[in-house]
Amino acid sequence: MARAYFSTVMGKSADAVWSEIRSFDDYEWAGTVSETAMEDGRPGDAVGGVRRIVAADRQMRQRLLAHSDVDRSYTYEFCDPNPYPVRDYRATLRVTPVTDTGQAFVEWWATFDCAEHEIDKWTKHFEQTGFATWLGSLRTRLQA
Amino acid sequence: MARAYFSTVMGKSADAVWSEIRSFDDYEWAGTVSETAMEDGRPGDAVGGVRRIVAADRQMRQRLLAHSDVDRSYTYEFCDPNPYPVRDYRATLRVTPVTDTGQAFVEWWATFDCAEHEIDKWTKHFEQTGFATWLGSLRTRLQA
Amino acid sequence: MARAYFSTVMGKSADAVWSEIRSFDDYEWAGTVSETAMEDGRPGDAVGGVRRIVAADRQMRQRLLAHSDVDRSYTYEFCDPNPYPVRDYRATLRVTPVTDTGQAFVEWWATFDCAEHEIDKWTKHFEQTGFATWLGSLRTRLQA
Amino acid sequence: MARAYFSTVMGKSADAVWSEIRSFDDYEWAGTVSETAMEDGRPGDAVGGVRRIVAADRQMRQRLLAHSDVDRSYTYEFCDPNPYPVRDYRATLRVTPVTDTGQAFVEWWATFDCAEHEIDKWTKHFEQTGFATWLGSLRTRLQA
Repeated sequence: MARAYFSTVMGKSADAVWSEIRSFDDYEWAGTVSETAMEDGRPGDAVGGVRRIVAADRQMRQRLLAHSDVDRSYTYEFCDPNPYPVRDYRATLRVTPVTDTGQAFVEWWATFDCAEHEIDKWTKHFEQTGFATWLGSLRTRLQA
Repeated sequence: MARAYFSTVMGKSADAVWSEIRSFDDYEWAGTVSETAMEDGRPGDAVGGVRRIVAADRQMRQRLLAHSDVDRSYTYEFCDPNPYPVRDYRATLRVTPVTDTGQAFVEWWATFDCAEHEIDKWTKHFEQTGFATWLGSLRTRLQA
Repeated sequence: MARAYFSTVMGKSADAVWSEIRSFDDYEWAGTVSETAMEDGRPGDAVGGVRRIVAADRQMRQRLLAHSDVDRSYTYEFCDPNPYPVRDYRATLRVTPVTDTGQAFVEWWATFDCAEHEIDKWTKHFEQTGFATWLGSLRTRLQA
Repeated sequence: MARAYFSTVMGKSADAVWSEIRSFDDYEWAGTVSETAMEDGRPGDAVGGVRRIVAADRQMRQRLLAHSDVDRSYTYEFCDPNPYPVRDYRATLRVTPVTDTGQAFVEWWATFDCAEHEIDKWTKHFEQTGFATWLGSLRTRLQA
Protein backbone atom coordinates (compact mmCIF):
# COMPACT_ATOMS: atom_id res chain seq x y z
CA MET A 1 0.00 0.00 0.00
CA ALA A 2 1.48 3.31 -1.01
CA ARG A 3 1.09 5.57 1.97
CA ALA A 4 2.32 9.09 2.60
CA TYR A 5 2.33 10.22 6.24
CA PHE A 6 3.34 13.44 7.95
CA SER A 7 2.83 14.54 11.56
CA THR A 8 3.78 17.52 13.69
CA VAL A 9 2.98 19.28 16.97
CA MET A 10 1.38 22.74 16.98
CA GLY A 11 1.52 25.28 19.78
CA LYS A 12 -2.26 25.73 20.02
CA SER A 13 -4.92 23.49 21.53
CA ALA A 14 -6.47 20.70 19.48
CA ASP A 15 -9.79 22.54 19.58
CA ALA A 16 -8.20 25.74 18.26
CA VAL A 17 -6.47 23.89 15.41
CA TRP A 18 -9.61 21.92 14.57
CA SER A 19 -11.70 25.07 14.61
CA GLU A 20 -9.38 26.60 11.99
CA ILE A 21 -9.49 23.65 9.59
CA ARG A 22 -12.72 21.75 10.24
CA SER A 23 -14.73 23.37 7.45
CA PHE A 24 -13.92 21.80 4.09
CA ASP A 25 -14.85 25.05 2.29
CA ASP A 26 -12.02 27.00 3.90
CA TYR A 27 -8.61 26.00 2.61
CA GLU A 28 -6.94 29.38 2.68
CA TRP A 29 -4.92 28.30 5.72
CA ALA A 30 -2.84 25.95 3.53
CA GLY A 31 -1.15 28.96 1.97
CA THR A 32 -1.15 27.68 -1.58
CA VAL A 33 -4.86 27.77 -2.34
CA SER A 34 -6.17 31.00 -3.81
CA GLU A 35 -9.83 30.05 -4.12
CA THR A 36 -12.13 27.48 -2.49
CA ALA A 37 -15.82 26.99 -3.13
CA MET A 38 -18.24 24.16 -2.49
CA GLU A 39 -20.23 22.89 -5.47
CA ASP A 40 -24.03 23.05 -5.27
CA GLY A 41 -23.90 25.40 -2.30
CA ARG A 42 -23.16 22.57 0.14
CA PRO A 43 -21.86 23.52 3.60
CA GLY A 44 -18.23 22.72 4.41
CA ASP A 45 -19.04 19.99 6.92
CA ALA A 46 -21.52 18.05 4.76
CA VAL A 47 -20.18 14.62 3.84
CA GLY A 48 -20.39 14.02 0.09
CA GLY A 49 -19.78 17.69 -0.70
CA VAL A 50 -17.23 18.62 -3.38
CA ARG A 51 -14.90 21.62 -3.11
CA ARG A 52 -13.27 23.30 -6.07
CA ILE A 53 -9.91 24.76 -5.28
CA VAL A 54 -7.42 26.75 -7.27
CA ALA A 55 -3.78 26.21 -6.34
CA ALA A 56 -0.90 27.51 -8.46
CA ASP A 57 -3.38 28.30 -11.24
CA ARG A 58 -4.52 24.71 -11.35
CA GLN A 59 -8.09 23.84 -10.55
CA MET A 60 -8.84 20.71 -8.56
CA ARG A 61 -11.94 19.06 -7.12
CA GLN A 62 -12.04 17.10 -3.86
CA ARG A 63 -14.93 15.21 -2.26
CA LEU A 64 -15.43 15.02 1.49
CA LEU A 65 -15.82 11.31 2.35
CA ALA A 66 -15.94 11.43 6.14
CA HIS A 67 -15.93 14.08 8.85
CA SER A 68 -15.73 13.68 12.62
CA ASP A 69 -15.93 16.18 15.45
CA VAL A 70 -15.20 13.23 17.77
CA ASP A 71 -11.80 12.49 16.24
CA ARG A 72 -11.29 16.02 14.89
CA SER A 73 -10.64 14.52 11.48
CA TYR A 74 -11.84 14.44 7.91
CA THR A 75 -11.14 12.29 4.87
CA TYR A 76 -11.36 13.30 1.20
CA GLU A 77 -10.54 12.05 -2.29
CA PHE A 78 -9.73 13.63 -5.63
CA CYS A 79 -12.50 13.89 -8.21
CA ASP A 80 -12.07 14.21 -11.95
CA PRO A 81 -10.09 15.68 -13.49
CA ASN A 82 -7.40 13.86 -11.47
CA PRO A 83 -4.47 16.27 -10.95
CA TYR A 84 -1.89 13.53 -10.33
CA PRO A 85 -0.96 10.27 -12.10
CA VAL A 86 -2.12 8.27 -9.10
CA ARG A 87 -5.31 6.27 -8.49
CA ASP A 88 -7.60 5.90 -5.50
CA TYR A 89 -6.00 8.76 -3.62
CA ARG A 90 -7.63 9.19 -0.23
CA ALA A 91 -6.31 11.54 2.44
CA THR A 92 -7.09 12.08 6.12
CA LEU A 93 -6.25 15.01 8.38
CA ARG A 94 -6.59 14.50 12.15
CA VAL A 95 -5.97 16.59 15.27
CA THR A 96 -5.37 15.03 18.72
CA PRO A 97 -4.79 16.84 22.04
CA VAL A 98 -1.39 16.74 23.73
CA THR A 99 -2.91 16.96 27.18
CA ASP A 100 0.14 17.74 29.28
CA THR A 101 1.04 20.90 27.33
CA GLY A 102 -2.31 21.92 25.85
CA GLN A 103 -0.83 21.61 22.35
CA ALA A 104 -2.08 19.65 19.34
CA PHE A 105 -0.69 16.62 17.53
CA VAL A 106 -1.60 16.95 13.84
CA GLU A 107 -1.41 14.08 11.33
CA TRP A 108 -2.01 14.11 7.60
CA TRP A 109 -1.75 10.97 5.50
CA ALA A 110 -2.86 9.56 2.17
CA THR A 111 -3.10 6.16 0.55
CA PHE A 112 -3.00 5.75 -3.25
CA ASP A 113 -1.90 3.54 -6.14
CA CYS A 114 0.49 4.51 -8.93
CA ALA A 115 3.13 3.06 -11.23
CA GLU A 116 5.30 0.90 -9.00
CA HIS A 117 8.54 2.75 -9.82
CA GLU A 118 6.94 6.06 -8.84
CA ILE A 119 5.68 5.07 -5.39
CA ASP A 120 8.62 6.62 -3.56
CA LYS A 121 8.47 9.76 -5.67
CA TRP A 122 4.80 10.44 -5.00
CA THR A 123 5.04 9.45 -1.35
CA LYS A 124 7.73 12.07 -0.81
CA HIS A 125 5.85 14.60 -2.91
CA PHE A 126 2.66 14.36 -0.88
CA GLU A 127 4.55 14.37 2.42
CA GLN A 128 6.89 17.26 1.74
CA THR A 129 5.53 19.45 -1.06
CA GLY A 130 2.07 18.78 0.26
CA PHE A 131 1.35 18.06 3.91
CA ALA A 132 4.52 19.57 5.44
CA THR A 133 4.11 22.77 3.44
CA TRP A 134 0.43 23.21 4.14
CA LEU A 135 0.77 22.49 7.86
CA GLY A 136 3.73 24.88 7.96
CA SER A 137 1.40 27.55 6.61
CA LEU A 138 -1.26 26.61 9.16
CA ARG A 139 1.30 26.89 11.96
CA THR A 140 2.29 30.39 10.87
CA ARG A 141 -1.32 31.42 10.61
CA LEU A 142 -2.18 30.11 14.09
CA GLN A 143 0.76 31.98 15.60
CA ALA A 144 -0.20 35.28 13.98
CA MET B 1 -17.56 1.38 30.21
CA ALA B 2 -21.27 0.85 29.82
CA ARG B 3 -21.80 -0.29 26.26
CA ALA B 4 -24.89 -1.50 24.45
CA TYR B 5 -24.28 -3.40 21.21
CA PHE B 6 -26.60 -5.01 18.68
CA SER B 7 -25.81 -6.46 15.26
CA THR B 8 -27.70 -8.25 12.51
CA VAL B 9 -27.51 -9.24 8.85
CA MET B 10 -29.89 -7.72 6.29
CA GLY B 11 -30.85 -9.20 2.94
CA LYS B 12 -29.88 -6.15 0.90
CA SER B 13 -26.49 -4.83 -0.13
CA ALA B 14 -24.50 -2.57 2.20
CA ASP B 15 -24.92 0.26 -0.30
CA ALA B 16 -28.70 -0.20 -0.38
CA VAL B 17 -28.93 -0.20 3.41
CA TRP B 18 -26.62 2.77 3.74
CA SER B 19 -28.57 4.68 1.12
CA GLU B 20 -31.73 4.22 3.19
CA ILE B 21 -30.25 5.45 6.46
CA ARG B 22 -27.31 7.72 5.63
CA SER B 23 -29.21 10.98 5.91
CA PHE B 24 -29.63 12.05 9.52
CA ASP B 25 -32.81 13.94 8.69
CA ASP B 26 -34.69 10.81 7.70
CA TYR B 27 -35.53 8.59 10.63
CA GLU B 28 -38.89 7.32 9.48
CA TRP B 29 -37.32 3.92 8.72
CA ALA B 30 -36.98 3.24 12.46
CA GLY B 31 -40.74 2.83 12.70
CA THR B 32 -41.18 4.68 15.97
CA VAL B 33 -40.36 8.20 14.88
CA SER B 34 -43.28 10.25 13.65
CA GLU B 35 -41.41 13.45 12.80
CA THR B 36 -37.81 14.37 12.01
CA ALA B 37 -36.47 17.80 11.17
CA MET B 38 -33.01 19.34 11.19
CA GLU B 39 -32.57 22.55 13.16
CA ASP B 40 -31.38 25.64 11.30
CA GLY B 41 -32.11 24.06 7.94
CA ARG B 42 -28.93 21.98 8.01
CA PRO B 43 -28.67 19.07 5.55
CA GLY B 44 -28.83 15.54 6.96
CA ASP B 45 -25.18 14.73 6.26
CA ALA B 46 -23.68 17.87 7.80
CA VAL B 47 -21.63 17.07 10.89
CA GLY B 48 -22.67 19.23 13.84
CA GLY B 49 -26.30 19.33 12.70
CA VAL B 50 -29.07 18.67 15.24
CA ARG B 51 -32.23 16.74 14.44
CA ARG B 52 -35.46 17.04 16.39
CA ILE B 53 -37.45 13.87 16.46
CA VAL B 54 -40.81 12.95 17.90
CA ALA B 55 -41.15 9.36 19.08
CA ALA B 56 -44.09 8.14 21.16
CA ASP B 57 -45.14 11.76 21.69
CA ARG B 58 -41.80 12.60 23.21
CA GLN B 59 -39.55 15.14 21.55
CA MET B 60 -35.81 14.52 21.47
CA ARG B 61 -32.78 16.27 20.00
CA GLN B 62 -29.71 14.50 18.67
CA ARG B 63 -26.49 15.97 17.28
CA LEU B 64 -24.56 14.35 14.42
CA LEU B 65 -20.93 14.03 15.63
CA ALA B 66 -19.35 12.09 12.77
CA HIS B 67 -20.42 10.77 9.38
CA SER B 68 -18.52 8.55 6.96
CA ASP B 69 -19.35 7.32 3.48
CA VAL B 70 -16.12 5.31 3.70
CA ASP B 71 -17.26 3.23 6.67
CA ARG B 72 -20.98 3.70 5.97
CA SER B 73 -21.40 4.93 9.52
CA TYR B 74 -22.46 7.84 11.64
CA THR B 75 -22.19 8.79 15.30
CA TYR B 76 -24.55 11.00 17.31
CA GLU B 77 -25.26 12.12 20.86
CA PHE B 78 -28.30 13.33 22.78
CA CYS B 79 -28.71 17.05 23.32
CA ASP B 80 -30.74 18.73 26.05
CA PRO B 81 -33.28 17.95 27.20
CA ASN B 82 -31.77 14.52 27.88
CA PRO B 83 -34.52 11.90 27.50
CA TYR B 84 -32.80 9.24 29.64
CA PRO B 85 -31.12 9.25 33.06
CA VAL B 86 -27.76 8.50 31.47
CA ARG B 87 -24.78 10.73 30.73
CA ASP B 88 -22.45 11.05 27.77
CA TYR B 89 -24.57 8.84 25.56
CA ARG B 90 -22.93 8.42 22.17
CA ALA B 91 -24.20 5.98 19.54
CA THR B 92 -22.81 4.70 16.24
CA LEU B 93 -24.57 2.93 13.40
CA ARG B 94 -22.41 1.15 10.80
CA VAL B 95 -23.05 -0.94 7.67
CA THR B 96 -20.45 -3.39 6.27
CA PRO B 97 -20.72 -5.57 3.15
CA VAL B 98 -21.03 -9.35 3.44
CA THR B 99 -19.23 -9.91 0.17
CA ASP B 100 -19.98 -13.57 -0.47
CA THR B 101 -23.77 -13.11 -0.36
CA GLY B 102 -24.18 -9.46 -1.28
CA GLN B 103 -25.90 -8.81 2.05
CA ALA B 104 -25.14 -6.25 4.75
CA PHE B 105 -23.83 -6.60 8.30
CA VAL B 106 -25.38 -3.82 10.40
CA GLU B 107 -24.12 -2.79 13.84
CA TRP B 108 -25.55 -0.27 16.28
CA TRP B 109 -23.89 0.48 19.59
CA ALA B 110 -23.78 3.13 22.29
CA THR B 111 -21.54 4.02 25.20
CA PHE B 112 -22.85 5.95 28.20
CA ASP B 113 -22.60 6.46 31.96
CA CYS B 114 -25.39 6.02 34.48
CA ALA B 115 -26.02 4.95 38.07
CA GLU B 116 -23.96 1.82 38.55
CA HIS B 117 -26.93 -0.37 39.54
CA GLU B 118 -28.76 0.62 36.37
CA ILE B 119 -26.03 -0.24 33.86
CA ASP B 120 -27.52 -3.60 32.95
CA LYS B 121 -31.02 -2.18 32.74
CA TRP B 122 -30.09 0.58 30.31
CA THR B 123 -27.78 -1.62 28.29
CA LYS B 124 -30.63 -4.04 27.64
CA HIS B 125 -33.05 -1.20 27.01
CA PHE B 126 -30.93 0.38 24.30
CA GLU B 127 -30.13 -2.98 22.70
CA GLN B 128 -33.64 -4.44 22.65
CA THR B 129 -36.23 -1.67 22.92
CA GLY B 130 -33.97 0.50 20.82
CA PHE B 131 -31.56 -0.91 18.25
CA ALA B 132 -33.21 -4.31 17.69
CA THR B 133 -36.64 -2.73 17.25
CA TRP B 134 -35.49 0.02 14.91
CA LEU B 135 -33.40 -2.31 12.76
CA GLY B 136 -36.34 -4.73 12.65
CA SER B 137 -38.40 -1.90 11.22
CA LEU B 138 -35.65 -1.09 8.72
CA ARG B 139 -35.50 -4.73 7.64
CA THR B 140 -39.25 -4.79 6.97
CA ARG B 141 -39.04 -1.56 5.04
CA LEU B 142 -36.16 -2.79 2.86
CA GLN B 143 -38.04 -5.98 2.02
CA ALA B 144 -41.19 -4.15 1.00
CA MET C 1 -4.31 1.46 -2.34
CA ALA C 2 -4.56 -2.09 -3.57
CA ARG C 3 -6.92 -3.83 -1.19
CA ALA C 4 -8.45 -7.30 -1.29
CA TYR C 5 -11.48 -7.83 0.95
CA PHE C 6 -13.70 -10.82 1.62
CA SER C 7 -16.40 -11.29 4.26
CA THR C 8 -18.92 -13.96 5.19
CA VAL C 9 -21.23 -15.10 7.97
CA MET C 10 -20.59 -18.37 9.80
CA GLY C 11 -23.13 -20.43 11.71
CA LYS C 12 -21.17 -20.53 14.96
CA SER C 13 -20.63 -17.88 17.61
CA ALA C 14 -17.85 -15.33 17.25
CA ASP C 15 -16.14 -16.85 20.29
CA ALA C 16 -16.26 -20.33 18.76
CA VAL C 17 -14.82 -19.10 15.45
CA TRP C 18 -12.15 -17.05 17.19
CA SER C 19 -11.21 -19.98 19.39
CA GLU C 20 -10.59 -22.07 16.27
CA ILE C 21 -8.34 -19.54 14.52
CA ARG C 22 -6.81 -17.31 17.20
CA SER C 23 -3.54 -19.18 17.50
CA PHE C 24 -1.16 -18.25 14.69
CA ASP C 25 0.57 -21.64 14.92
CA ASP C 26 -2.53 -23.55 13.86
CA TYR C 27 -3.41 -23.04 10.20
CA GLU C 28 -4.72 -26.49 9.44
CA TRP C 29 -8.28 -25.10 9.36
CA ALA C 30 -7.52 -23.32 6.08
CA GLY C 31 -7.50 -26.67 4.29
CA THR C 32 -4.51 -25.95 2.06
CA VAL C 33 -1.74 -25.87 4.64
CA SER C 34 -0.06 -29.18 5.38
CA GLU C 35 2.41 -27.97 8.02
CA THR C 36 2.64 -25.02 10.39
CA ALA C 37 5.36 -24.33 12.93
CA MET C 38 6.49 -21.25 14.80
CA GLU C 39 10.15 -20.29 14.52
CA ASP C 40 12.19 -20.11 17.72
CA GLY C 41 9.54 -21.97 19.67
CA ARG C 42 7.37 -18.86 20.03
CA PRO C 43 3.74 -19.36 21.09
CA GLY C 44 1.04 -18.73 18.49
CA ASP C 45 -0.29 -15.58 20.15
CA ALA C 46 3.06 -13.81 20.62
CA VAL C 47 3.30 -10.69 18.48
CA GLY C 48 6.48 -10.68 16.41
CA GLY C 49 6.45 -14.46 16.05
CA VAL C 50 7.05 -16.02 12.61
CA ARG C 51 5.24 -19.11 11.35
CA ARG C 52 6.55 -21.36 8.61
CA ILE C 53 3.83 -22.97 6.58
CA VAL C 54 3.82 -25.45 3.75
CA ALA C 55 0.99 -25.09 1.26
CA ALA C 56 0.91 -26.95 -2.06
CA ASP C 57 4.54 -27.95 -1.52
CA ARG C 58 5.58 -24.32 -1.25
CA GLN C 59 7.10 -23.03 1.97
CA MET C 60 6.17 -19.57 3.22
CA ARG C 61 6.96 -17.47 6.27
CA GLN C 62 4.56 -15.01 7.89
CA ARG C 63 5.09 -12.66 10.84
CA LEU C 64 2.37 -11.86 13.36
CA LEU C 65 2.21 -8.04 13.58
CA ALA C 66 -0.79 -7.53 15.84
CA HIS C 67 -3.20 -9.71 17.80
CA SER C 68 -6.32 -8.75 19.73
CA ASP C 69 -8.70 -10.75 21.88
CA VAL C 70 -10.74 -7.54 22.14
CA ASP C 71 -11.45 -7.33 18.41
CA ARG C 72 -10.95 -11.05 17.79
CA SER C 73 -8.45 -10.18 15.08
CA TYR C 74 -4.86 -10.56 14.02
CA THR C 75 -2.64 -8.98 11.38
CA TYR C 76 0.37 -10.53 9.63
CA GLU C 77 2.80 -9.92 6.78
CA PHE C 78 4.90 -12.07 4.48
CA CYS C 79 8.58 -12.48 5.29
CA ASP C 80 11.31 -13.44 2.87
CA PRO C 81 11.26 -15.29 0.62
CA ASN C 82 8.22 -13.42 -0.70
CA PRO C 83 5.90 -15.93 -2.40
CA TYR C 84 4.10 -13.35 -4.56
CA PRO C 85 5.27 -10.51 -6.81
CA VAL C 86 3.67 -7.95 -4.49
CA ARG C 87 5.20 -5.63 -1.90
CA ASP C 88 4.17 -4.62 1.59
CA TYR C 89 1.48 -7.27 1.84
CA ARG C 90 -0.34 -7.01 5.16
CA ALA C 91 -3.46 -9.02 5.98
CA THR C 92 -6.00 -8.91 8.79
CA LEU C 93 -8.55 -11.50 9.87
CA ARG C 94 -11.36 -10.37 12.20
CA VAL C 95 -14.41 -11.99 13.80
CA THR C 96 -17.42 -9.97 15.03
CA PRO C 97 -20.59 -11.26 16.74
CA VAL C 98 -23.92 -11.17 14.94
CA THR C 99 -25.85 -10.71 18.17
CA ASP C 100 -29.40 -11.41 17.01
CA THR C 101 -28.60 -14.89 15.67
CA GLY C 102 -25.52 -15.86 17.70
CA GLN C 103 -23.54 -16.24 14.48
CA ALA C 104 -20.23 -14.67 13.47
CA PHE C 105 -19.32 -12.09 10.83
CA VAL C 106 -15.84 -12.92 9.53
CA GLU C 107 -13.69 -10.51 7.49
CA TRP C 108 -10.33 -11.08 5.84
CA TRP C 109 -8.54 -8.36 3.96
CA ALA C 110 -5.08 -7.41 2.73
CA THR C 111 -3.36 -4.30 1.45
CA PHE C 112 -0.34 -4.49 -0.85
CA ASP C 113 1.53 -2.85 -3.73
CA CYS C 114 2.31 -4.44 -7.09
CA ALA C 115 2.72 -3.59 -10.76
CA GLU C 116 -0.17 -1.28 -11.60
CA HIS C 117 -1.56 -3.50 -14.37
CA GLU C 118 -1.67 -6.46 -12.01
CA ILE C 119 -3.64 -4.84 -9.18
CA ASP C 120 -6.95 -6.33 -10.26
CA LYS C 121 -5.42 -9.74 -10.85
CA TRP C 122 -3.85 -10.01 -7.41
CA THR C 123 -6.86 -8.48 -5.67
CA LYS C 124 -9.08 -11.20 -7.12
CA HIS C 125 -6.50 -13.87 -6.41
CA PHE C 126 -6.25 -13.05 -2.70
CA GLU C 127 -10.03 -12.69 -2.36
CA GLN C 128 -11.08 -15.84 -4.19
CA THR C 129 -8.20 -18.32 -4.34
CA GLY C 130 -7.18 -17.18 -0.89
CA PHE C 131 -9.66 -15.83 1.65
CA ALA C 132 -12.85 -17.34 0.22
CA THR C 133 -11.28 -20.77 -0.10
CA TRP C 134 -9.72 -20.80 3.35
CA LEU C 135 -12.85 -19.53 5.06
CA GLY C 136 -14.86 -22.11 3.14
CA SER C 137 -12.62 -24.76 4.65
CA LEU C 138 -13.05 -23.21 8.10
CA ARG C 139 -16.83 -23.25 7.67
CA THR C 140 -16.81 -26.94 6.82
CA ARG C 141 -14.58 -27.71 9.75
CA LEU C 142 -16.79 -25.80 12.21
CA GLN C 143 -19.88 -27.63 10.99
CA ALA C 144 -18.31 -31.03 11.39
CA MET D 1 -18.43 6.24 29.30
CA ALA D 2 -15.90 7.04 31.97
CA ARG D 3 -12.66 7.66 30.18
CA ALA D 4 -9.29 8.81 31.46
CA TYR D 5 -6.87 10.12 28.82
CA PHE D 6 -3.34 11.48 28.99
CA SER D 7 -0.93 12.30 26.17
CA THR D 8 2.53 13.79 25.85
CA VAL D 9 5.46 14.17 23.46
CA MET D 10 8.80 12.47 24.16
CA GLY D 11 12.17 13.48 22.79
CA LYS D 12 13.01 10.07 21.36
CA SER D 13 11.75 8.33 18.24
CA ALA D 14 8.53 6.31 18.32
CA ASP D 15 10.57 3.17 17.67
CA ALA D 16 12.87 3.90 20.60
CA VAL D 17 9.95 4.54 22.96
CA TRP D 18 8.09 1.46 21.76
CA SER D 19 11.19 -0.66 22.13
CA GLU D 20 11.40 0.39 25.78
CA ILE D 21 7.80 -0.43 26.66
CA ARG D 22 6.56 -3.05 24.17
CA SER D 23 7.19 -6.04 26.37
CA PHE D 24 4.42 -6.48 28.93
CA ASP D 25 6.81 -8.24 31.34
CA ASP D 26 8.97 -5.16 31.78
CA TYR D 27 7.27 -2.44 33.78
CA GLU D 28 10.25 -1.10 35.64
CA TRP D 29 10.22 2.00 33.41
CA ALA D 30 7.08 3.23 35.15
CA GLY D 31 9.11 4.01 38.25
CA THR D 32 6.58 2.73 40.77
CA VAL D 33 6.70 -0.98 40.06
CA SER D 34 9.25 -2.96 42.02
CA GLU D 35 8.57 -6.40 40.53
CA THR D 36 7.02 -7.72 37.32
CA ALA D 37 6.64 -11.35 36.30
CA MET D 38 4.47 -13.14 33.78
CA GLU D 39 2.37 -16.02 35.04
CA ASP D 40 2.92 -19.46 33.50
CA GLY D 41 6.19 -18.35 31.94
CA ARG D 42 4.44 -16.56 29.08
CA PRO D 43 6.51 -14.12 27.01
CA GLY D 44 5.74 -10.40 27.38
CA ASP D 45 4.24 -10.02 23.92
CA ALA D 46 1.87 -13.00 24.06
CA VAL D 47 -1.76 -11.88 24.04
CA GLY D 48 -3.69 -13.44 26.90
CA GLY D 49 -0.67 -13.43 29.21
CA VAL D 50 -1.05 -12.16 32.78
CA ARG D 51 1.60 -10.12 34.57
CA ARG D 52 1.90 -9.84 38.34
CA ILE D 53 3.26 -6.55 39.49
CA VAL D 54 4.13 -5.15 42.86
CA ALA D 55 3.67 -1.40 43.25
CA ALA D 56 3.83 0.36 46.60
CA ASP D 57 3.72 -3.04 48.34
CA ARG D 58 0.46 -3.88 46.63
CA GLN D 59 0.27 -6.82 44.26
CA MET D 60 -1.80 -6.54 41.11
CA ARG D 61 -2.52 -8.75 38.11
CA GLN D 62 -3.10 -7.46 34.58
CA ARG D 63 -3.99 -9.38 31.43
CA LEU D 64 -2.69 -8.41 27.98
CA LEU D 65 -5.75 -8.20 25.70
CA ALA D 66 -4.21 -6.86 22.48
CA HIS D 67 -0.75 -6.01 21.21
CA SER D 68 0.29 -4.37 17.95
CA ASP D 69 3.67 -3.64 16.43
CA VAL D 70 1.76 -1.89 13.63
CA ASP D 71 0.22 0.72 15.92
CA ARG D 72 2.92 0.44 18.61
CA SER D 73 0.20 -0.16 21.16
CA TYR D 74 -1.13 -2.62 23.68
CA THR D 75 -4.32 -2.99 25.70
CA TYR D 76 -4.74 -4.65 29.10
CA GLU D 77 -7.27 -5.13 31.87
CA PHE D 78 -7.14 -5.77 35.60
CA CYS D 79 -7.64 -9.32 36.83
CA ASP D 80 -8.79 -10.36 40.27
CA PRO D 81 -8.18 -9.22 42.87
CA ASN D 82 -9.33 -5.86 41.50
CA PRO D 83 -7.19 -3.12 43.08
CA TYR D 84 -9.70 -0.28 42.48
CA PRO D 85 -13.44 0.11 43.08
CA VAL D 86 -14.06 0.31 39.34
CA ARG D 87 -15.39 -2.25 36.87
CA ASP D 88 -14.42 -3.21 33.35
CA TYR D 89 -11.21 -1.21 33.45
CA ARG D 90 -9.40 -1.46 30.14
CA ALA D 91 -6.34 0.61 29.28
CA THR D 92 -4.39 1.24 26.09
CA LEU D 93 -0.91 2.67 25.62
CA ARG D 94 0.07 3.83 22.11
CA VAL D 95 3.12 5.45 20.51
CA THR D 96 2.94 7.43 17.23
CA PRO D 97 5.80 9.11 15.33
CA VAL D 98 6.04 12.89 15.13
CA THR D 99 7.67 12.78 11.72
CA ASP D 100 8.93 16.35 11.40
CA THR D 101 11.01 16.22 14.59
CA GLY D 102 11.69 12.50 14.97
CA GLN D 103 9.97 12.54 18.37
CA ALA D 104 7.14 10.38 19.69
CA PHE D 105 3.54 11.18 20.60
CA VAL D 106 2.54 8.91 23.48
CA GLU D 107 -1.07 8.33 24.58
CA TRP D 108 -2.41 6.36 27.53
CA TRP D 109 -6.10 6.01 28.19
CA ALA D 110 -8.57 3.82 30.06
CA THR D 111 -12.29 3.22 30.05
CA PHE D 112 -14.10 1.90 33.12
CA ASP D 113 -17.33 1.98 35.12
CA CYS D 114 -17.69 3.04 38.75
CA ALA D 115 -20.11 4.70 41.13
CA GLU D 116 -21.46 7.69 39.25
CA HIS D 117 -20.36 10.25 41.87
CA GLU D 118 -16.79 8.94 41.69
CA ILE D 119 -16.30 9.15 37.93
CA ASP D 120 -14.43 12.45 38.09
CA LYS D 121 -12.32 11.29 41.02
CA TRP D 122 -11.13 8.11 39.33
CA THR D 123 -10.67 9.78 35.96
CA LYS D 124 -8.30 12.29 37.52
CA HIS D 125 -6.59 9.59 39.55
CA PHE D 126 -5.77 7.43 36.54
CA GLU D 127 -4.69 10.43 34.46
CA GLN D 128 -2.48 12.14 37.02
CA THR D 129 -1.40 9.67 39.71
CA GLY D 130 -1.22 7.00 37.04
CA PHE D 131 -0.43 7.80 33.40
CA ALA D 132 1.27 11.18 33.89
CA THR D 133 3.50 9.85 36.64
CA TRP D 134 4.50 6.68 34.83
CA LEU D 135 5.19 8.45 31.54
CA GLY D 136 7.20 11.06 33.47
CA SER D 137 9.33 8.22 34.76
CA LEU D 138 9.66 6.79 31.25
CA ARG D 139 10.74 10.21 29.95
CA THR D 140 13.48 10.47 32.57
CA ARG D 141 14.65 6.96 31.82
CA LEU D 142 14.82 7.59 28.06
CA GLN D 143 16.84 10.75 28.59
CA ALA D 144 19.38 9.03 30.83
